[in-house]
Amino acid sequence: MAHIDLGLDERQFPGINGPMRFRPETAGPLNALAEALLHAPHPTLSAGERELIAAYVSGLNECVFCCSSHSAFAAAQLDGGMTLVQQVRADLDGADVSAKLRALLRIAAAVQQDGRKVTAALVDAARAEGATDLEVHDTVLIAAAFCMFNRYVDGLGTLPAADPADYEQAAQRVKVHGYGQAA
Amino acid sequence: MAHIDLGLDERQFPGINGPMRFRPETAGPLNALAEALLHAPHPTLSAGERELIAAYVSGLNECVFCCSSHSAFAAAQLDGGMTLVQQVRADLDGADVSAKLRALLRIAAAVQQDGRKVTAALVDAARAEGATDLEVHDTVLIAAAFCMFNRYVDGLGTLPAADPADYEQAAQRVKVHGYGQAA
Repeated sequence: MAHIDLGLDERQFPGINGPMRFRPETAGPLNALAEALLHAPHPTLSAGERELIAAYVSGLNECVFCCSSHSAFAAAQLDGGMTLVQQVRADLDGADVSAKLRALLRIAAAVQQDGRKVTAALVDAARAEGATDLEVHDTVLIAAAFCMFNRYVDGLGTLPAADPADYEQAAQRVKVHGYGQAA
Repeated sequence: MAHIDLGLDERQFPGINGPMRFRPETAGPLNALAEALLHAPHPTLSAGERELIAAYVSGLNECVFCCSSHSAFAAAQLDGGMTLVQQVRADLDGADVSAKLRALLRIAAAVQQDGRKVTAALVDAARAEGATDLEVHDTVLIAAAFCMFNRYVDGLGTLPAADPADYEQAAQRVKVHGYGQAA
């Protein structure tokens, strides 16, 4: 049960959904940020690739709700599906992703630990694989944002979804409609 | 120098200002989030108290730009000024803040480490000093948000302000106008 009274049935609104309903004033910007980072059109990174970064960081933060959600969201939008998502989470070095995406995921892992862990060498390695300034920027901000979302969900002690199928249903909604209250 | 080409003079746009101008699509929601959390009217927590939580977490994350900024923003809006901000950052137990704010800052410190470090005991202690559900919620989200902002600024390797007076000038702007692009 959450640390605060969210004024709703937590089994019906697991994870971030309870706090988002509890405080619509902050839910608006949070949804708009997720929309801009993960779902809005992007010149070079697909929505699936961006969701994969979110899932990977949420896995490193061991946030069950966010990792389950964004793994499902990535799987629904990547050719490799959940097999690829699980590969990346289990063994990034051996996973079947492009060299550029692997280099971006290494930057995301550094951000997850501490912003100062992002070195010029990590950025140069991504650039050598063709990463653009915008891709590096968005990777850093997606990783940083999930260090927020993960702490928001776990810091309030909310419950993950009771039924794993809920994540797949949400994935279909997000794939089509994105994060709703976009800016 | 930042890890990416922000397309501007970094000395003129230190810290988060460069990335915010580089990517206005994400700057909008980020400013709106800061506005809702730190500057919008709040039933019980003053803007100074909320900025103090932001400064405290930024200090724990050792993000020079964010900690300098939000310390100045807190000092400009708290009766105790910079002396109080420095006291809180150096010795929370002995600092001259209310028992409720001290308990909320302890929750913020737990969030900074990992959302799962927020225990029922920490929340109960805040509640015993009169903290409301909204205060606990906002403390968790402010702390989580600064785990994002700090990583955004440091993960892109941006520079702090060259002149410390810049933080005080920004503090006067934020005190009056808040975070501009509010939702």
